[in-house]
Amino acid sequence: MTNVAAVRAAVMDPETDAGVFGPGWVAASVELDDRAWVEAMLDVEVALAVAQERVGMVPATALGPIRAAARGDGMDLMGLRAGVRETANPVVALVAQLTARVATLDPAAAEYVHRGATSQDVLDTAAMLLCARALDAIAVDLDSAAAALADLASTHRDTVMVARTLTQHAVPTTFGLKAAGWLSLVVDAVTRVLAARAALPASLGGAAGTLAAYEQYALLAGRPPGTSLRLAAEFAAELGLVDAVLPWHVLRTPVVDVAAAVTFSCGALGKMAADVLVLTRTEVQEVVEQGGPGRGASSAMPQKQNPVLATLIATAARQAPVQALVLHQAMVAEDERSSGAWHAEWQPLRECLRLAAGAAAAAAELAAGLLVRPERMAENLRMTGGAVVTERLAAVLAPMLGKSAAKRVLTESVAQAELTGAGLAATLAERLDGTAGLSAGDLAALLDPAAYTGVANLLVDRALAAYRAGRPDQQGVI
Amino acid sequence: MTNVAAVRAAVMDPETDAGVFGPGWVAASVELDDRAWVEAMLDVEVALAVAQERVGMVPATALGPIRAAARGDGMDLMGLRAGVRETANPVVALVAQLTARVATLDPAAAEYVHRGATSQDVLDTAAMLLCARALDAIAVDLDSAAAALADLASTHRDTVMVARTLTQHAVPTTFGLKAAGWLSLVVDAVTRVLAARAALPASLGGAAGTLAAYEQYALLAGRPPGTSLRLAAEFAAELGLVDAVLPWHVLRTPVVDVAAAVTFSCGALGKMAADVLVLTRTEVQEVVEQGGPGRGASSAMPQKQNPVLATLIATAARQAPVQALVLHQAMVAEDERSSGAWHAEWQPLRECLRLAAGAAAAAAELAAGLLVRPERMAENLRMTGGAVVTERLAAVLAPMLGKSAAKRVLTESVAQAELTGAGLAATLAERLDGTAGLSAGDLAALLDPAAYTGVANLLVDRALAAYRAGRPDQQGVI
Amino acid sequence: MTNVAAVRAAVMDPETDAGVFGPGWVAASVELDDRAWVEAMLDVEVALAVAQERVGMVPATALGPIRAAARGDGMDLMGLRAGVRETANPVVALVAQLTARVATLDPAAAEYVHRGATSQDVLDTAAMLLCARALDAIAVDLDSAAAALADLASTHRDTVMVARTLTQHAVPTTFGLKAAGWLSLVVDAVTRVLAARAALPASLGGAAGTLAAYEQYALLAGRPPGTSLRLAAEFAAELGLVDAVLPWHVLRTPVVDVAAAVTFSCGALGKMAADVLVLTRTEVQEVVEQGGPGRGASSAMPQKQNPVLATLIATAARQAPVQALVLHQAMVAEDERSSGAWHAEWQPLRECLRLAAGAAAAAAELAAGLLVRPERMAENLRMTGGAVVTERLAAVLAPMLGKSAAKRVLTESVAQAELTGAGLAATLAERLDGTAGLSAGDLAALLDPAAYTGVANLLVDRALAAYRAGRPDQQGVI
Amino acid sequence: MTNVAAVRAAVMDPETDAGVFGPGWVAASVELDDRAWVEAMLDVEVALAVAQERVGMVPATALGPIRAAARGDGMDLMGLRAGVRETANPVVALVAQLTARVATLDPAAAEYVHRGATSQDVLDTAAMLLCARALDAIAVDLDSAAAALADLASTHRDTVMVARTLTQHAVPTTFGLKAAGWLSLVVDAVTRVLAARAALPASLGGAAGTLAAYEQYALLAGRPPGTSLRLAAEFAAELGLVDAVLPWHVLRTPVVDVAAAVTFSCGALGKMAADVLVLTRTEVQEVVEQGGPGRGASSAMPQKQNPVLATLIATAARQAPVQALVLHQAMVAEDERSSGAWHAEWQPLRECLRLAAGAAAAAAELAAGLLVRPERMAENLRMTGGAVVTERLAAVLAPMLGKSAAKRVLTESVAQAELTGAGLAATLAERLDGTAGLSAGDLAALLDPAAYTGVANLLVDRALAAYRAGRPDQQGVI
Repeated sequence: MTNVAAVRAAVMDPETDAGVFGPGWVAASVELDDRAWVEAMLDVEVALAVAQERVGMVPATALGPIRAAARGDGMDLMGLRAGVRETANPVVALVAQLTARVATLDPAAAEYVHRGATSQDVLDTAAMLLCARALDAIAVDLDSAAAALADLASTHRDTVMVARTLTQHAVPTTFGLKAAGWLSLVVDAVTRVLAARAALPASLGGAAGTLAAYEQYALLAGRPPGTSLRLAAEFAAELGLVDAVLPWHVLRTPVVDVAAAVTFSCGALGKMAADVLVLTRTEVQEVVEQGGPGRGASSAMPQKQNPVLATLIATAARQAPVQALVLHQAMVAEDERSSGAWHAEWQPLRECLRLAAGAAAAAAELAAGLLVRPERMAENLRMTGGAVVTERLAAVLAPMLGKSAAKRVLTESVAQAELTGAGLAATLAERLDGTAGLSAGDLAALLDPAAYTGVANLLVDRALAAYRAGRPDQQGVI
Repeated sequence: MTNVAAVRAAVMDPETDAGVFGPGWVAASVELDDRAWVEAMLDVEVALAVAQERVGMVPATALGPIRAAARGDGMDLMGLRAGVRETANPVVALVAQLTARVATLDPAAAEYVHRGATSQDVLDTAAMLLCARALDAIAVDLDSAAAALADLASTHRDTVMVARTLTQHAVPTTFGLKAAGWLSLVVDAVTRVLAARAALPASLGGAAGTLAAYEQYALLAGRPPGTSLRLAAEFAAELGLVDAVLPWHVLRTPVVDVAAAVTFSCGALGKMAADVLVLTRTEVQEVVEQGGPGRGASSAMPQKQNPVLATLIATAARQAPVQALVLHQAMVAEDERSSGAWHAEWQPLRECLRLAAGAAAAAAELAAGLLVRPERMAENLRMTGGAVVTERLAAVLAPMLGKSAAKRVLTESVAQAELTGAGLAATLAERLDGTAGLSAGDLAALLDPAAYTGVANLLVDRALAAYRAGRPDQQGVI
Repeated sequence: MTNVAAVRAAVMDPETDAGVFGPGWVAASVELDDRAWVEAMLDVEVALAVAQERVGMVPATALGPIRAAARGDGMDLMGLRAGVRETANPVVALVAQLTARVATLDPAAAEYVHRGATSQDVLDTAAMLLCARALDAIAVDLDSAAAALADLASTHRDTVMVARTLTQHAVPTTFGLKAAGWLSLVVDAVTRVLAARAALPASLGGAAGTLAAYEQYALLAGRPPGTSLRLAAEFAAELGLVDAVLPWHVLRTPVVDVAAAVTFSCGALGKMAADVLVLTRTEVQEVVEQGGPGRGASSAMPQKQNPVLATLIATAARQAPVQALVLHQAMVAEDERSSGAWHAEWQPLRECLRLAAGAAAAAAELAAGLLVRPERMAENLRMTGGAVVTERLAAVLAPMLGKSAAKRVLTESVAQAELTGAGLAATLAERLDGTAGLSAGDLAALLDPAAYTGVANLLVDRALAAYRAGRPDQQGVI
Repeated sequence: MTNVAAVRAAVMDPETDAGVFGPGWVAASVELDDRAWVEAMLDVEVALAVAQERVGMVPATALGPIRAAARGDGMDLMGLRAGVRETANPVVALVAQLTARVATLDPAAAEYVHRGATSQDVLDTAAMLLCARALDAIAVDLDSAAAALADLASTHRDTVMVARTLTQHAVPTTFGLKAAGWLSLVVDAVTRVLAARAALPASLGGAAGTLAAYEQYALLAGRPPGTSLRLAAEFAAELGLVDAVLPWHVLRTPVVDVAAAVTFSCGALGKMAADVLVLTRTEVQEVVEQGGPGRGASSAMPQKQNPVLATLIATAARQAPVQALVLHQAMVAEDERSSGAWHAEWQPLRECLRLAAGAAAAAAELAAGLLVRPERMAENLRMTGGAVVTERLAAVLAPMLGKSAAKRVLTESVAQAELTGAGLAATLAERLDGTAGLSAGDLAALLDPAAYTGVANLLVDRALAAYRAGRPDQQGVI
């Protein structure tokens, strides 16, 4: 076997998901694969030894060998996978591999590996480290998307376009208001992501959440009662995580909080993607995704330019809440460790993080590069010959004709104008025949879509102000 | 047709769900049926007229008739249902019914019904009123459950029982710690419910979120530009809801925040229920649900006493996150109003609220009446003859024999003791034969489960302190 | 209290869902409310007595009073609801009410009510009766939709329109092929619905699936061992249901089979609705939903004509698979009756049936009334100036220029034609400059969309033939 | 960089999931990683060329180079992943890599790679190949589990144990009947898996399902109209897949059928796992999972023997239906290819297959090695002192005392016996005091659990007969 083949046999024979079939997360930069999680577990084992040394349970001499041995590149993933089949989690096998490696460096130090710990302490804390990494990346990309959307909202504060409800042209709106809506959702997402990030706790409970073995080792080392609580605090501090009030092996608040934040983010971005997918339709063409050569190409059709980024986001938004469901349901975990609920969290948690990271990265790029086409917006707005402003006419005519008569006149005039092609203003003028005191010119002015955008502009200002209030560095900037 | 039959024909012929098949919400006291929602929509129509009067868009004389007509008992539910089939929402038909009733009182006032409004303004705001009512009820029941759990945790701070992991006896713990864990989840739930409650916004956007028709009517009434924003603020204030930064027809943060809070609550309570279901098993019997005569009876088996409250909670916990999923996915709503996403929210939102309300009410009753049996806990703890404390022995023996040798000795001794029935202390004493310097008496003391509960007691104190810190009226009380 | 108010208090005080907020099922004609289910449970109690009489366990004289008493209109729904709170199911209370009513007619007969039965026998069998009723209605509506779609496919076999992929114009197709695709999904749905319908079993197992009490009563009545198996067969036959091999209290194949069939149906119809929603967009307008006055009206905008039926279907399709998820997960039911899994099935099962029935009814109406506009299809096809046929050109040019050079030439020409407005045929002709031996006329012919629909026509024929093969009465008809 | 590091950089830098965190599928033997799927796509490209050669569209000389180049080990996974980011699917990049490799062998042959095809043809057909592989493996493991369960049912046909409902002892049953129930679910699962397997179709539609480019190339090669339909048939035959009536790019019956089959399988096995998890509880101990050394070990507690296989199955059963939900919802795919629905299928489809394969493999091992302990079953049955047979007593006493009096006597006697410890037979004898003509001996006999198992034995025979009827090689065997 060649070197290369040997490496592949060693590291690739188990199932390998390289992201080729994960379009929802392929845009993400954060690394959450098995090796990353295993490395995080090794970091946790090291932090545990460090914290135990700090509270006097482990000699300082043990730290060097443990640190030296706890490097992910030497761990045998296939061995860990085999361990999962035997014990339902990879930690038993990981500890065995780690202990053996420490022992080759310093047999005495090997006694201090994973001391007093349970598998869940290690796996859950490592999961929180991955969450931290992913949430940080997501927050950065969401922030970047928000900045781009704020620019779009500001630039297009007064760009008139048609609003669509139940697929039909409704009334005029502005692209600025649409972008401000996307912005407000992204801001909501950032808030939730940062809150979840700040609350990520370390997990330290021992076999069943009483910290008994940690306490026992501390007592044997001559430390005072309650030392295990100090240990938990040191452990969390060492890893930059929160010291939880209670061990949370079966109190899954941290996991569902992360799930909720990333689900929200995907939903928020999914709204934007859904709109972009409508607006880029060949018949609509009000916005266009921009990209380099190759972006959006089709394997079959030379002319195609697909909205790839919006598709990547949309596909993430379809999956993330479903993956999160597994996590929400896993709150219902019987006993001090459940048979299946905990184990069901691992893949979906990672998938949620990946999907949100992928969606956020794609959204940042999408928002920054979105080409807006006001001329197409204006053209589409004219498509129904003024019918998009009949709501306004109804308001104007109601005091004169009564609400329901006004509505009837308008519904009938729209239908008639469509049939005859005579134009809505002319049709209405003829129909009203001066009864409402409105000239054809008055009617034409009233039917100008650009004059019927309500307070869209003020709403944009409000959304931008709210955004800037949450970003101190942006205050005062328009 | 008799009077009685006529009423039934009028109000009952459409589908009627009386809760007979909703065990997850049958315990709830809050009313969320179709009539309740319709009445909330009428309240919204009234509040809209009131707010419009305040900003000078509607004459004060119109308020009386609108208020008088907007009473739910006269509305024809079957007519509304028929309207849904025609327009995909019940508001068009409701406004028609309401307008007709106002017109019989005062034709002039009828012109001011639903002025400038869109269906979604009314339906969504009414939904928020139902959310407010439900979240209030849920918070009360969760608070009550928390108080009972704090009592249990305090009373049983030192009641030793076995901790179970993957269905097997693991190490000792206390019932106090278990109850403290439930408490901490309930406290987390209350926090989330109250936060969602406080953020519930009114929905006012007009046809497509620009407030254009409201603004138009205000202008026609001689009010200054921007009046529609004042209207939105008055409208929200009148209903005790928050004035949103932007109209949120397709920015569904409020809905998913409610969904997240109630899902969390059901998950939190589901954890408690799952534990209670284990602990009440005939073979375990460590806790018993209390109830009056008939509670928990079986149609077939005279001796049965079923854990009904835990079952009601468990069944709610299975459904709530799934119902919430529809809401999370509905964030992805295209355009200014989607074709299907919004409409998909109504039933699942109500179902989520009902399930959480049902679970909270059942949990309050369950926690208040839970009978704890320390003697059965002690008995079960003895069941494995000390094997639940082998983790402790491993810690004690490791320094003498080395970690892995210690573990091997213990694993083998447990197996041997089980085979011979000689007892673990004796078996170990013989096997160690003094090498570890431990007498049979030392070993027996080390194998006492009550002496190996780690810092369970301190953790209970911590959880109670955290609970009381969040309840100013409870501070200083133990 | 007046008579009317009293009735309302009696029957309406509990939660009442009249369908006003169930747009996904409002179109359905089948009745599945609480009263319908309760009546089905009473039918089951009668059938049980009848079957027991047939196998000699119950005297014939008991049947009359039981039959007479088992009428739904007298049952107290609020009492049943209260019973659910006490016993986690409505059957204990229902049997009490029924027994009391039988006793007023004939005390001796009251002894034979619910004899040997368990709650789940009654509730599950009644659920199967509701499933039968709903699946029958769904099959009828799907059949009707299929017939209308077959007509559309046949009529528009050669109506050319643009195919869209990732929102962009791709290549030509036909409306016939699109309709044939919808048809094939509906046919798949009918197949699954009919299969699930035919397999619906009665549920008879007694307290824990051994039929022990039934057997005991039979033995006491002097019947031979094994009589309870005969009873199960008679019971199923009486109700027109299948006699299951094993009692299925915790073997939920029947429930998930129904769930799978109705989920599939909603998905199949949801595909059609999704397409209709795109095709009815104001900018596309290739099809229009037809409806009477009021259908599709907006509360705010006089000119609106919303695609209501497609929206009703779309909203059902969003929810049905999620509701079904609860049922799929409820397969994992511990013991001989679970604490929560069974109870979680009732509402979601009913909701699934309603959503599928609503979607099928709306789809039948939608398909029958769909207005197809070939002239708009032709217009949209011309929108990209021939770019939708570049795939064809690539195939023609590849042998001359090589595959990748051909693709490059086309991509660039499309972009250039768009910029210059010179038209793709002319641009290409100039660019190729005769190198490919193709005149401008050749190119124009090659760029005719109507000439590049592949075998769409033959595929339509295939789909229609497959449809007719499954409908013996339709064979030979075109 | 060393060779080894270079390989790792090349193949491992992208996200790698080796199964270390996939306990639900770690037991599966089938390989479904990215490389496997990529290799399947290459097999599809080869099959397409072969089929095109057969219908005369591609020269035979092109096949050798294409076949030689289409080997997965040379493909650059990172490049494919990068391609997904640009085009939302990996096929465009794969075709580029493949074409380049063919070109190095034979530039002329490179013209025939992926001819007329669209990305979805390749990716979907490859997915069906993975489904075939996975379903085959699942069927084998389910068959093996069924055989072991049939043995258990047969061996323990008359092994009496307690049935439990809502966690409480209910009435006696047999372990044979419990195993027969598991068997019947597994048989249902096999049926569904084999049906889905047999129906797996190839996917060939070209850019938008009209086969236009294939047809065009065939016409250019002088083949008659309709050749593309022959091509589709040859393509399917070459791959051992079904020739679909219509291209199914957006008609997702095949995907949801697979989803339904594997979801069902996980649910069926999840029921067995849920029961095993109850029965292995330390307090119950009626069955024990068997395993070699290390199986079920804990990282912390030397005495633990965890039910690992049941946990692996349980965790798969929690996730599979949720993953499948994404697939069910993806039926609603707009246009001729959707923006996101299709892309959302890939990961969840693979996860479903893995989870079902993992669960089936674990179940086969669990069923084959399950240690049943009749002596513990008997012991538990005695735990309530006969109360588990009160249903029988109720039947016997009802004719004498009336149904409700009998029930009351029994409920009270059970409570009294529990209080006094006098035993139920004695308590009842005293209470009845001969009124029912039953001696203490009669009562003791009636209270023998083994005499009250109904027709459990006949039901086991029925289930085994049904199983054997579906397995011709097993007929006549007991």
